[in-house]
Amino acid sequence: MNFSKKVSSMQFSPIRRFNPIAIAAEESGKKVYHLNIGQPDVETPPCFMEAIRDFDAKVIAYAESGGLTILQDAVIDYFKNYNVDLERKNIIVTTGGSEALNMTFLTLLDEGDEILLPEPFYTNYHTFATAAGGVVVPITTKGEEGYHYAKKEQIEACITPRTKAICCITPGNPTGCVLTLDEMKLIAEVAIEHDLFIVADEVYREFVYDGGEAHSFFEVEGIEDRLVVIDSVSKRYSACGARIGFCISKCEKFMEGIMKIAQGRLCTSTVDQVGAAALFRLPTSYYDEVKAEYCARRDVVYEELQKIPGFDSPKPRGAFYLTCKLPVDDVEELLMFLLQEFEDNGETVMYAPAAGFYGTPGLGKDEIRIAYVLKQEDMRRAVELLRLGIEAYNNR
Amino acid sequence: MNFSKKVSSMQFSPIRRFNPIAIAAEESGKKVYHLNIGQPDVETPPCFMEAIRDFDAKVIAYAESGGLTILQDAVIDYFKNYNVDLERKNIIVTTGGSEALNMTFLTLLDEGDEILLPEPFYTNYHTFATAAGGVVVPITTKGEEGYHYAKKEQIEACITPRTKAICCITPGNPTGCVLTLDEMKLIAEVAIEHDLFIVADEVYREFVYDGGEAHSFFEVEGIEDRLVVIDSVSKRYSACGARIGFCISKCEKFMEGIMKIAQGRLCTSTVDQVGAAALFRLPTSYYDEVKAEYCARRDVVYEELQKIPGFDSPKPRGAFYLTCKLPVDDVEELLMFLLQEFEDNGETVMYAPAAGFYGTPGLGKDEIRIAYVLKQEDMRRAVELLRLGIEAYNNR
Repeated sequence: MNFSKKVSSMQFSPIRRFNPIAIAAEESGKKVYHLNIGQPDVETPPCFMEAIRDFDAKVIAYAESGGLTILQDAVIDYFKNYNVDLERKNIIVTTGGSEALNMTFLTLLDEGDEILLPEPFYTNYHTFATAAGGVVVPITTKGEEGYHYAKKEQIEACITPRTKAICCITPGNPTGCVLTLDEMKLIAEVAIEHDLFIVADEVYREFVYDGGEAHSFFEVEGIEDRLVVIDSVSKRYSACGARIGFCISKCEKFMEGIMKIAQGRLCTSTVDQVGAAALFRLPTSYYDEVKAEYCARRDVVYEELQKIPGFDSPKPRGAFYLTCKLPVDDVEELLMFLLQEFEDNGETVMYAPAAGFYGTPGLGKDEIRIAYVLKQEDMRRAVELLRLGIEAYNNR
Repeated sequence: MNFSKKVSSMQFSPIRRFNPIAIAAEESGKKVYHLNIGQPDVETPPCFMEAIRDFDAKVIAYAESGGLTILQDAVIDYFKNYNVDLERKNIIVTTGGSEALNMTFLTLLDEGDEILLPEPFYTNYHTFATAAGGVVVPITTKGEEGYHYAKKEQIEACITPRTKAICCITPGNPTGCVLTLDEMKLIAEVAIEHDLFIVADEVYREFVYDGGEAHSFFEVEGIEDRLVVIDSVSKRYSACGARIGFCISKCEKFMEGIMKIAQGRLCTSTVDQVGAAALFRLPTSYYDEVKAEYCARRDVVYEELQKIPGFDSPKPRGAFYLTCKLPVDDVEELLMFLLQEFEDNGETVMYAPAAGFYGTPGLGKDEIRIAYVLKQEDMRRAVELLRLGIEAYNNR
């Protein structure tokens, strides 16, 4: 029996597929610093579990398909910080940003329709687009240009009659590239001119460094009928396991379509929604604290990386990822070496090979993605291990 | 801008789409008995929230994509009651049975592939199959035949070169039809003969009445390489809002495919998984108690329905639904009348019109689905209201 071509064409997650080898290394007694996955060690604000512990319903019942109103209302109030006015009907609570993307692509795409996506990109976009029958068309960006993609000509060169949407993750995973408000406006202009939908993935919204400002595509005028914002509690509140995300759009036709899918899968976890509502009520000082911590982690990582001979990458301006070239031919081979052969005082490190983040075959073989999600001293040691590992690898 | 044809062809849930009208009725002061949705009023076992309250992780982190091992192990032990041996690698924890079905169809179906599904069927099968590009081919069943479909000739008449799978919900939603072990074997034979996958939705497994026995397709030999069992905590443990389901299969190739999708969406709610693990550790006496309660509710409903002139439907043998004809031409019109015009002492009732549960156009216009999920006295009053409402409707 043959299974679906769609699933055959999907890849195993480049972020997770080396996990079994890392587990084997750990079981052999090695300590492995995990820089491969965007799982922060930052404490989830205690209000999440406190709200859940106080939840005393006798029956854990289905929520409404669009989400619990206490959570929708908390999101509405949060967006007032950005001078964005939302109503409940603009918000569908989803099982993580993942389901939000999945449902969005199902609503937008017919078999063979295309989405534009700057590469390197968060690899699961390929999974979600493929599941919907769509095709990812990469807009190639380069480290030496700061991974910028808000360039009209380059975007337009990728547009075909099948292009339905342009996707922007800003602040960006895996590059840390951040769109300014002016760049958002430029992308909006292109979208209007070519009748494209904008999928704005803003799950790292607050994590903008070096004096840059946090923005939302909702601040751009004239695109209400062609914009969906993807949001999530995972990164902002270090609550990745809570699986609460959002599709937020003022386009009524889009919301009508996506609501059919939302009703089909019934609803999102009631208990997680109760906890998430408390998270969105945190004072804005919370975002400043977390941002300062990630910024300090980035600085440590970047400082340590510069000690690796041949390292040359731009300093990321947002989110908590960094994509860079390493002075080796094949970073997957290096990763296997790090996990299976290398150690320094019983410790080693793992990262995500970047090839899986590119849609263009052949790109990224000498690049990696680092998630700077561990505390500063751990990040410093992890990048030191990377440097020592590269030395040992090149001296084999 | 046009959105996807798939989503255009999906319908709004026939179970949920009258909710806004019911809410309006409630806001006008009427009490509405909800027989439309399978949301039981049975208390969720307290161990669910107790386990969650005891969960003291500082970081609510991603779970493994296949699920937390404490939950996988609890499921393995539960299945030992059925003499079924499972391993962790056979189990992927999903966001409800809904996601399990969604991921299953994505793994099995290419654009235009067909699944066989006895009708009337749980309407969201249409949503999930359509999302995967598949087509539902209904096997029509009839109330006067007890909604039986384990008939080789009738099934074979529906098979085409595009048929990839046969889906069995047993005990059944919306009819209450239950497959015996011999009937499961017959379906297995047909599946082997025609190289079909079997999607066995067993989320109501224990709810079998009148001396019938609970069974799983896993008890049937020779189909390990073509069987996926869909399971869930929603109904068994009255934990619909927990959103914990399962894809369980011993077919390695199937599990390899579906794991790519599972990794793409990262994982299922960590907190809900912690609670669900406690549910699967309940003593087997729990199932007997709950079954006795639903059986008593069924008896009350059936007794009251027989007071409606012209009522003639088989007594359901499992799950907690009943599909029956009503002595009116259009049950949607009756439902609007019940919600907007009728009341008896300030009370009325709502149900799910059954047309949405049929794949064959024109069927089910005079049929409804009742979920007997309320306590006995409420069920009695609700069916009384239905009888009085029909009288008033026919005497307009």
